[in-house]
Amino acid sequence: MTIEVDYRFPLGVDVHKQAKMIAVGQTVGTWDGRFSHREESLRAHLAQVVNVVEDDTGSTATIHFPESNVEGDIASLLTMIFGKYSMAGQGKIIDLRLPQHYGKEPTVGMSGIRERLGVPHRPLIMAIFKPALGLSPEDHALIFSQVAHAGLDIIKDDEILPNLDIAPTKKRLEACLEVIHEVKAKTGRTVLYAVNVTGSAEDLIKNARKLVWKGANALLLNVLTYGFSVLDTLASDPEINVPIFAHPAFAGALCAAPHTGLAYSVVLGTLMAHGGADAVLYPAHYGSLPFDPQEEAKICQILRQRNVFPVPSAGIHPGILPQVIQDYGPDVILNAGTGIMDHPEGPAAGVRAFFEAWERLQGGGAFDLASLPEGALKRAVEKWGSA
Amino acid sequence: MTIEVDYRFPLGVDVHKQAKMIAVGQTVGTWDGRFSHREESLRAHLAQVVNVVEDDTGSTATIHFPESNVEGDIASLLTMIFGKYSMAGQGKIIDLRLPQHYGKEPTVGMSGIRERLGVPHRPLIMAIFKPALGLSPEDHALIFSQVAHAGLDIIKDDEILPNLDIAPTKKRLEACLEVIHEVKAKTGRTVLYAVNVTGSAEDLIKNARKLVWKGANALLLNVLTYGFSVLDTLASDPEINVPIFAHPAFAGALCAAPHTGLAYSVVLGTLMAHGGADAVLYPAHYGSLPFDPQEEAKICQILRQRNVFPVPSAGIHPGILPQVIQDYGPDVILNAGTGIMDHPEGPAAGVRAFFEAWERLQGGGAFDLASLPEGALKRAVEKWGSA
Repeated sequence: MTIEVDYRFPLGVDVHKQAKMIAVGQTVGTWDGRFSHREESLRAHLAQVVNVVEDDTGSTATIHFPESNVEGDIASLLTMIFGKYSMAGQGKIIDLRLPQHYGKEPTVGMSGIRERLGVPHRPLIMAIFKPALGLSPEDHALIFSQVAHAGLDIIKDDEILPNLDIAPTKKRLEACLEVIHEVKAKTGRTVLYAVNVTGSAEDLIKNARKLVWKGANALLLNVLTYGFSVLDTLASDPEINVPIFAHPAFAGALCAAPHTGLAYSVVLGTLMAHGGADAVLYPAHYGSLPFDPQEEAKICQILRQRNVFPVPSAGIHPGILPQVIQDYGPDVILNAGTGIMDHPEGPAAGVRAFFEAWERLQGGGAFDLASLPEGALKRAVEKWGSA
Repeated sequence: MTIEVDYRFPLGVDVHKQAKMIAVGQTVGTWDGRFSHREESLRAHLAQVVNVVEDDTGSTATIHFPESNVEGDIASLLTMIFGKYSMAGQGKIIDLRLPQHYGKEPTVGMSGIRERLGVPHRPLIMAIFKPALGLSPEDHALIFSQVAHAGLDIIKDDEILPNLDIAPTKKRLEACLEVIHEVKAKTGRTVLYAVNVTGSAEDLIKNARKLVWKGANALLLNVLTYGFSVLDTLASDPEINVPIFAHPAFAGALCAAPHTGLAYSVVLGTLMAHGGADAVLYPAHYGSLPFDPQEEAKICQILRQRNVFPVPSAGIHPGILPQVIQDYGPDVILNAGTGIMDHPEGPAAGVRAFFEAWERLQGGGAFDLASLPEGALKRAVEKWGSA
């Protein structure tokens, strides 16, 4: 089985020369007569340039790498397909096709998350604790209580909240577990809290195990700042039997440039889907982040093919639901930060507005202000508009 | 104490707007009246825009972040200073100033490596196993024996060589340890072998401990593909009392773009120096990689200030030594791949050529072909030229 990579070059780059540099330089590197007795073995490690296409705006080289050069994980894969070569000038990885068996499958995944929540069909609604920093564990529990009782499916820490003295991870979990138990006892519903795991690799892994043991029912990981190798360990561990939400923080550093780095769909799609994530957040094009709808659709498709939940974030508010469902269908987790927390009538109304919007959409109702009945949805549309 | 970051924007970007977006968006995120009782706590987490400079080619905003927002490591730092914002469009981190105590100091460092080798003053000579893939452990030992007996200081695995069946990491170490012991017994000299540690985070860490326990006297880590959090654990572990060589593989994905990502000097300089590396490889501007000499000089300076050994790589061959010493001075590890392994008379001659070059430079001799006496250096200069 081979690993297939498309490298894109702008006009003016000698694509044939670059492709050869990659195929040799990123595999055997060099060889000479001293190793003629090993020629067969060396050849088995060489990558092959299988296609070169030149067009009006540049060129694309497709290269096949032997799977036997790497360890079946994301870290050794990235080192091979882009390690040293990434420093060679202009050249961007725009597509990556891995064998189906490469890497990890999600442990819980889209189907497992729906099963745990007992919500088989509708889009799931997810909130983020805000403000990101400065809240006590009691503040977290207070906010959580409001949105959880209003029907929320999932809440997550803000990705920039690490294990701080003012709100230690363990204390946040303890405070929020009370709410989870309360909602369960009262309504039978499960609410997930994706708690942010941080620290040096070994501490992070140990803490993740402890948190799950204490009752955490979801984890949040900044995969790109902590490392795919950390996701690998968490996803491989049978003790960590809860969904791992992968956050895209830092993805722009790798993906935002036109002619270097990797496409967003490679990093937030393929690498996450084969890296062990159960759900992956990415910026939706509705928000202020300049995100390409096509790239986003590709991420969504890649993730779902592997039973990984797409979690479009940014610019998500109740009035945009018709557009969101048209763009993604209902197999999606809608992640709203301010779209829930900054609702004019408070976070609980923010959650209710989403469910009102879902009901209305199901019933074929219009979303313009004049047609909307009084209520949380109308207040939301007054503030953020509708689509 | 504060963390100081310079963000650079191209012309046409509203620097004041972006700076404010970073200062609020990357810290508290949002707040409203509900948390007025916590206003003081929230304010303590806010970043401050302390300077904005506009010039002919763009603008630079300097922002101060409270150290108390992060965990004193690189991963939570990156999430805060660039996490979500990295996806906001054009904007590049061109400088990062951390408090002296932030992060880790190297365990062994420049002084410790010199001490272990018993080489107090001259530049150290380092080779890389080539071909990168396809050699057996016995091949590794054979090559190593040739260069080690010729006087080499350090050898390293190629960064793309993981733990493969054809040459398992443990077997490579065992084979190379014999050479290390032989050279020690015969000459009293220590030769370091930086063995590449790979795998999922937990396996990598366990293997690193086992390898050191078995006698490994140096480690190689692809910090950017495995994660700074992994370096953090390795550097914190008192059992891992050997120098960690940080490889720059994948750095181009983060650093090569003009208007996004981070400067090479931030990633390969500041982050590595505060991340726990003992020696850091980076592309020298002598090679084929398009590297800016000023950025390189900055990396070198940042590393040395923290007792971290700079390891310029790419385009290093014996004839370039006068230029290299003029550019860096002697406190440097010269890392030559083909510059040793592809010497016309073989790898041992490649090593001898470097020492002949160093002797000749000390004696003030010229490096042009006509003046050079017969020998390994002359052969090298015939092949690669001199500077």
